[in-house]
Amino acid sequence: MNTKSPMAPEKFPDMPPIPGVRLASAACGVRYKGRRDVLLAELEHGTTAAGVFTLSKCPSAPVDWCRKALKGGQARALIVNSGNANAFTGRVGAEAVEQTVEAVAERLPCRPSMVYAASTGVIGEPLPYQRITDNLGALYESLSPAAWSEAAEAIATTDTYTKGVSRKARIGTVDVTINGIAKGSGMIAPNMGTMLVFLFTDAKLPSEILQPMLGDAVNRSFNSITVDSDTSTSDTVLLFATGKGAEHLAPASADDPLLDDFRAKLHEATLDLAHQIVRDGEGASKFVAIRVEGAEDDGAAKTIAFAIANSPLVKTAIAGEDANWGRIVMAVGKSGEKADRDLLGIRIGGVLVAANGCAVADFDEAPVAEHMKGRDIDIAVDLGIGTGSATVWTCDLTHAYIDINADYRT
Amino acid sequence: MNTKSPMAPEKFPDMPPIPGVRLASAACGVRYKGRRDVLLAELEHGTTAAGVFTLSKCPSAPVDWCRKALKGGQARALIVNSGNANAFTGRVGAEAVEQTVEAVAERLPCRPSMVYAASTGVIGEPLPYQRITDNLGALYESLSPAAWSEAAEAIATTDTYTKGVSRKARIGTVDVTINGIAKGSGMIAPNMGTMLVFLFTDAKLPSEILQPMLGDAVNRSFNSITVDSDTSTSDTVLLFATGKGAEHLAPASADDPLLDDFRAKLHEATLDLAHQIVRDGEGASKFVAIRVEGAEDDGAAKTIAFAIANSPLVKTAIAGEDANWGRIVMAVGKSGEKADRDLLGIRIGGVLVAANGCAVADFDEAPVAEHMKGRDIDIAVDLGIGTGSATVWTCDLTHAYIDINADYRT
Repeated sequence: MNTKSPMAPEKFPDMPPIPGVRLASAACGVRYKGRRDVLLAELEHGTTAAGVFTLSKCPSAPVDWCRKALKGGQARALIVNSGNANAFTGRVGAEAVEQTVEAVAERLPCRPSMVYAASTGVIGEPLPYQRITDNLGALYESLSPAAWSEAAEAIATTDTYTKGVSRKARIGTVDVTINGIAKGSGMIAPNMGTMLVFLFTDAKLPSEILQPMLGDAVNRSFNSITVDSDTSTSDTVLLFATGKGAEHLAPASADDPLLDDFRAKLHEATLDLAHQIVRDGEGASKFVAIRVEGAEDDGAAKTIAFAIANSPLVKTAIAGEDANWGRIVMAVGKSGEKADRDLLGIRIGGVLVAANGCAVADFDEAPVAEHMKGRDIDIAVDLGIGTGSATVWTCDLTHAYIDINADYRT
Repeated sequence: MNTKSPMAPEKFPDMPPIPGVRLASAACGVRYKGRRDVLLAELEHGTTAAGVFTLSKCPSAPVDWCRKALKGGQARALIVNSGNANAFTGRVGAEAVEQTVEAVAERLPCRPSMVYAASTGVIGEPLPYQRITDNLGALYESLSPAAWSEAAEAIATTDTYTKGVSRKARIGTVDVTINGIAKGSGMIAPNMGTMLVFLFTDAKLPSEILQPMLGDAVNRSFNSITVDSDTSTSDTVLLFATGKGAEHLAPASADDPLLDDFRAKLHEATLDLAHQIVRDGEGASKFVAIRVEGAEDDGAAKTIAFAIANSPLVKTAIAGEDANWGRIVMAVGKSGEKADRDLLGIRIGGVLVAANGCAVADFDEAPVAEHMKGRDIDIAVDLGIGTGSATVWTCDLTHAYIDINADYRT
């Protein structure tokens, strides 16, 4: 792995086993030699699934596959490789997925439509899937309920650290567990595409309840982060529920108050992983939270927050530790959403720097300058015209981003 | 001025006088000492005007003013300063514009609504307009029909070279002239905002004919370029027609075939200036033309072309001279416009590198690698689903962009 991001967590979290989930990973040489690059997760009978995928009009072959598989809502296995994204690979790409999932299905055995697949790595090169299928026997033999850290390692590409999360949630009087692993270091990394997130729980929840809960959690986490505004061909978030934990009451719907804590903990888990991805953003030296309030509606607030978060001028200013609120005004103005220059208020590190259409006279620059020197930057914008709000998270744009992405082949 | 861009034109063009236009510029110390920073253009009675302005919801005070002035369609003067954008300056900003145009109007004399104003420079600081009005007498005394190069110099900020253009156009049997000057080095530059473009012609054309012709020319030139996707609070394009050239037939409308050549030359002039701005893009080392064909419609083609042009991953790949077509696929996919991965064709420097949903087997990499080493990069994408097309122009994203924008205050 590359030099660890200065914003990496101190250590990989403790992740307890999830009843009904066993994991195995191996170095199969898909692209690179001598590093884990394939993950197999075996899921017990009765496991349900939910998924959210890239909105790219040029999705990878495994994304096409997962969309189809998810219609059944059932899952028995997950197979993931890093090193090759199997994206823009035409008919041979689709065949590579089919061959892989059929081999996994035969081994378990189960129907191929219960096997989910994901790939991350170079775009446009045929996936040498035999390197995966040749190793399925050994992977199957080494399945273990404890191998979470190795699983996170196997799906990483340009990540500078492995990403995991674990939360306990209560359903009625019963404790269930939610575990998740993720990879990603740019919305798409240099040729090495993709954000992949896999979540597992031992709760017993049908697919039609899982799916809206996952969709909502993703909107407020992975769909609220940006490193470089570039959307991968392969972004995949999958949630599997084995139903093999302690028995709990059956909720009637995704909105059932019985699921309040589960919903909250699922959101916490996805947000934790989303923040880990931003903190590992290519070349990032600062973690930036952008809160927009007072917008026309929540959608407008999110659009404005992303206009700020994706502005190269805002991002370079943050890299330069410059509290350049004029660029924030510029980004609000270009977002296309309703705004009134003369009602706009901007806070940096909690200090009001601009309001009523001009700079705040004689605001104290010292705490703002000090805030800009820190690792965690807070920007808050109040549009002053409505009740819409949103928060998004991003990182700064540094020389290291250019190094990683322009000098990739040299 | 900063070190001249490697893509600068060899010299400032020869620009003949435009009957009815006199120019003066001076160093008024608006922000910096000892450099020209104010331009006054005097326009003879009967001059008509057309304008296109930033779509920012947080426009500068002079943009607000020009929008109002343009309702009359008449013009007698233009006053421009660099060094201070008079943007996000609240009520004092509007007053600064009023004071300035009233002083100009009094001097000529004319009605204030016939005086157009533009400002470029730092955002959020009150414009010390007295430094301009104190110098109006001297400016007025030095008006000359020949001072085009000095005029271009007076409106520049972080530009590394001055930008001008001149074209002859025929209306019927009569020759008219179109002159233009521009400034811009980022859609918005570091604190020093803005693209400003001023065009002058001696043709006799009413405002209602000028405006649609200018709008169309701007769409295919200034609205088809991007340096960093950031839209200024102050972008302004103004076209003035003095009607003081040789007498020509009066066109019935903007579509009149009598104006075919004028329309073509106006487009040429705006495109020339637009390309000069991209070639002076902050940190730019490559000029990139992105042609999209076969899209659902022209609007979709332009959206896709901009998705490619604004992608940090595409721009850094070009800086690294890497023919990374996988990132072009990614950008097409994220644009949100209709696309079919398996119909997409991509050419770099004229060589087909990807088609039918995968890489072209054994394409000749040598000419593509050679093309990427050049200054002018051509990317062509065929969506293969319709007849929509568009071309946009951009530059690469280099370390120098970060230097200019992150290290601005230090």
